[in-house]
Amino acid sequence: MKSCPLCATEGGLTLYRDELLRVVRVTDTPEHPAFYRVILNAHVAEFSALPRTERERLMETVVAVERLLLDTLRPAKINLASLGNVVPHLHWHVIARFADDAQFPAPIWANAQRERPTAALQALQAQWPVLDAQIAQAAASVR
Amino acid sequence: MKSCPLCATEGGLTLYRDELLRVVRVTDTPEHPAFYRVILNAHVAEFSALPRTERERLMETVVAVERLLLDTLRPAKINLASLGNVVPHLHWHVIARFADDAQFPAPIWANAQRERPTAALQALQAQWPVLDAQIAQAAASVR
Repeated sequence: MKSCPLCATEGGLTLYRDELLRVVRVTDTPEHPAFYRVILNAHVAEFSALPRTERERLMETVVAVERLLLDTLRPAKINLASLGNVVPHLHWHVIARFADDAQFPAPIWANAQRERPTAALQALQAQWPVLDAQIAQAAASVR
Repeated sequence: MKSCPLCATEGGLTLYRDELLRVVRVTDTPEHPAFYRVILNAHVAEFSALPRTERERLMETVVAVERLLLDTLRPAKINLASLGNVVPHLHWHVIARFADDAQFPAPIWANAQRERPTAALQALQAQWPVLDAQIAQAAASVR
């Protein structure tokens, strides 16, 4: 699918990849620095179209990323979503949400309610090198 | 948790309930008539806090609802999400999206782009009695 951005590109900074899926850090939403995607490599639109074993490994990878974010960042909440209205190529958003982020407690797709303090953004960005490696390791441990 | 709306109320019209979870049709978002929630009965905030067997049954129930909506309504896309920023009691949104719905292709939490034709809403509402029974049956068949 040359016209699909998740077939033509990685969809973010790839931290982990295997034959079924990849885990990327999202790079196009700078106001949410702790935003990851678990992306199916194959071009499939709906979660229910996958065999159960593949659904389970996708979700266990989502869970591994969620757990790592909870343990390391202590966010207010983790948000999980598989939408795909614009890009119907299965991908799970895993987003660490914080009380001072632009839309909290609304979903990130709602209007911004505030500007997030630059210091808070920079503090999260400073954790990328360590977090990137931890997420790669967590994803690799899923079976 | 008396202060939690998903402990104090069903969170919609209950179509199915067992010892672990319930499936409700959402009644507070009339602009999306094919919107369901798979709600954990227990008050737990994060998906990763559940045992794997419970995570799997929740997701297989989500999948059963998704499949039924795909087969019966032929929506443009199914949207799945577990957010819980306002109500941190685990619940999965399962939303059938249509090209003429208010926000499509944006998430339902974004600003409305149009008003959905009344005839389209009424056509979906007319399917509730049959769909309600089919969703209850689909949820009951998950193990």
